Amino acid sequence: MTGCVAILDLTLNAVDLTVQLVDIESVSQNEQAIADAVEAALTPYGHLSVTRHGNTVVARTDLGHGERVVIAGHLDTVPLNDNLPARLDGGLLHGLGTCDMKGGDAVILRLAAMLPEPNRDVTYILYEGEEIDTEFNGLFQLSQSHPELMRADFAILMEPSNAEVEAGCQGTLRVEVRATGERAHSARSWKGVNAIHQATAILERLRDYEPRKPVIDGLEYHEGLNAVSIRGGVAGNVLPDECVVEVNHRFAPDRSEAEAQAFVRHLFEGYDVTVVDTAPGALPGLDLPAAKEFIEAVGREVNPKFGWTDVARFTSLGIPAVNFGPGDPMLAHKQEEHVPVEHIERCERQLREWLS
Amino acid sequence: MTGCVAILDLTLNAVDLTVQLVDIESVSQNEQAIADAVEAALTPYGHLSVTRHGNTVVARTDLGHGERVVIAGHLDTVPLNDNLPARLDGGLLHGLGTCDMKGGDAVILRLAAMLPEPNRDVTYILYEGEEIDTEFNGLFQLSQSHPELMRADFAILMEPSNAEVEAGCQGTLRVEVRATGERAHSARSWKGVNAIHQATAILERLRDYEPRKPVIDGLEYHEGLNAVSIRGGVAGNVLPDECVVEVNHRFAPDRSEAEAQAFVRHLFEGYDVTVVDTAPGALPGLDLPAAKEFIEAVGREVNPKFGWTDVARFTSLGIPAVNFGPGDPMLAHKQEEHVPVEHIERCERQLREWLS
Repeated sequence: MTGCVAILDLTLNAVDLTVQLVDIESVSQNEQAIADAVEAALTPYGHLSVTRHGNTVVARTDLGHGERVVIAGHLDTVPLNDNLPARLDGGLLHGLGTCDMKGGDAVILRLAAMLPEPNRDVTYILYEGEEIDTEFNGLFQLSQSHPELMRADFAILMEPSNAEVEAGCQGTLRVEVRATGERAHSARSWKGVNAIHQATAILERLRDYEPRKPVIDGLEYHEGLNAVSIRGGVAGNVLPDECVVEVNHRFAPDRSEAEAQAFVRHLFEGYDVTVVDTAPGALPGLDLPAAKEFIEAVGREVNPKFGWTDVARFTSLGIPAVNFGPGDPMLAHKQEEHVPVEHIERCERQLREWLS
Repeated sequence: MTGCVAILDLTLNAVDLTVQLVDIESVSQNEQAIADAVEAALTPYGHLSVTRHGNTVVARTDLGHGERVVIAGHLDTVPLNDNLPARLDGGLLHGLGTCDMKGGDAVILRLAAMLPEPNRDVTYILYEGEEIDTEFNGLFQLSQSHPELMRADFAILMEPSNAEVEAGCQGTLRVEVRATGERAHSARSWKGVNAIHQATAILERLRDYEPRKPVIDGLEYHEGLNAVSIRGGVAGNVLPDECVVEVNHRFAPDRSEAEAQAFVRHLFEGYDVTVVDTAPGALPGLDLPAAKEFIEAVGREVNPKFGWTDVARFTSLGIPAVNFGPGDPMLAHKQEEHVPVEHIERCERQLREWLS
């Protein structure tokens, strides 16, 4: 069998291009096909220098402007949920990744191809592994292997934000909470300790949790605490000796990672708690000049970002960053995920104007 | 690669033979090696007619006696738990399957080999798949494919029963109890419904369950209700839309399978309940002549059987049956499983006397 690369036509409008991107399935850790297609589509444009890093593609202009902006989007999606291929219905484009975030990716590809001489230098980054653990995140990997490619005065993440500017983002912490017991034959269960039954209070504490909603720089955040997986079991007639609940805590940017961990450890006191993955939040930073200028140019209202996004990664590198992308973030990761065509068109138009 | 069959030496004493059987790993659905060894060891004995059915081996004497007894044991074990190989320590033999039930299997093999002329005809059955779903149970399969091989006036199951007679057995019912929700991104969890959190009340009802302990024919039974597995989860940042708890109910033989199902469905009202596996209990039947005679010959006290055993399968075929085997059933399926050497020797001696 010979290899084959999907053809992306960057002269198409951004909506049709979104359809092409959505129909290249790219669940996390399966981004090779889409990264191949993106690389092949960008390479012919002489005004870009294109490099490939794993399944992350970087395309830069180098016009010698005094200012550089990063515009970035991830190529991966959450798992399939019977929601491919893409389907256009009136003004809405439906399907896995339409909202999170191939609409944004299409805008990036259009800008990269169609603006040979932007008014500031641009680094376009289309990256892998955003929906899974940090170690797989293409932007994280790039910050380790090629930090010079991340350098900029300002960064725009095209995460779904209703085509409006979202500032700051919540942090995320994932832990395993472990209940233990002692195996026994289920016919004589009184001789053992059932670890799944021991996990009851873990679920009770999750069910009874009341989220904080702090207001920061005038933006109201909304925390969350959720079991994202549960597992336990040895055989159909054995009391299991272990039950593990994986919990994802989303915390507002007024709390550090350490404070978030302390909160979770205290809540699950009596159980073994292991940190699996953690990423800090980012304060809105709306007072920084680069952020102010962009917001004035786009002229939209600013909202808080609930989801963790790589905005936090840029913030931690000292680069002001915002989210600005098509699609309602409430629809991300849902089966009925979709994006309004108008959002895609508006984002492209506003960014093109800002860069022209 | 050429095949290879482990050599079992049936002239060894039953304890050494148990060691040999234990060291042939035979977790359910992986019984081929042990069945090959058993078949190869029995075939040379001219007083037996040996047949193979999947990984179940049947060896029969055919002396024309007016009475026939089945003596049966299963060859499979529950999963490994860092408890192989066999280890003899003073009067105790430790290791996976020592108690449940390769000590009994060794006694069966010894009787089959060493008693060319028993005082009643014997059908020895060593079978696969007892620790998993009924459809895989070698005795069940034999009752479907070759019911004539199951025919007998009395049956002895060598399930661990402290080398005493245990009569009757509890029934078993396995169901999946399902909680449902709606997927959403964990950063905006208020837009979805977390199926794992919805499962909290399933675990609460299991934790709060109080077992019945009915007395039947003078024997006190002890019911049980246990989660044997739990699963749920889509991705580390997605609220899962399904959480499934697999529950095993052990019920005393005064309840039918239908009554046990009704009890479980009522307990988990509000959730979707699906039956996975079910097997009826068996009333003690101590008033049946064949059972009485055996008990008098063995001269031991009679206890209730908590675990479900294939005694129930014989009972449902109209064949009186008891459990009588080495090992403490409380140790079955536990990591520290072991069997007293004295139990193995006593069972062999008493059965040999009864058959001589």
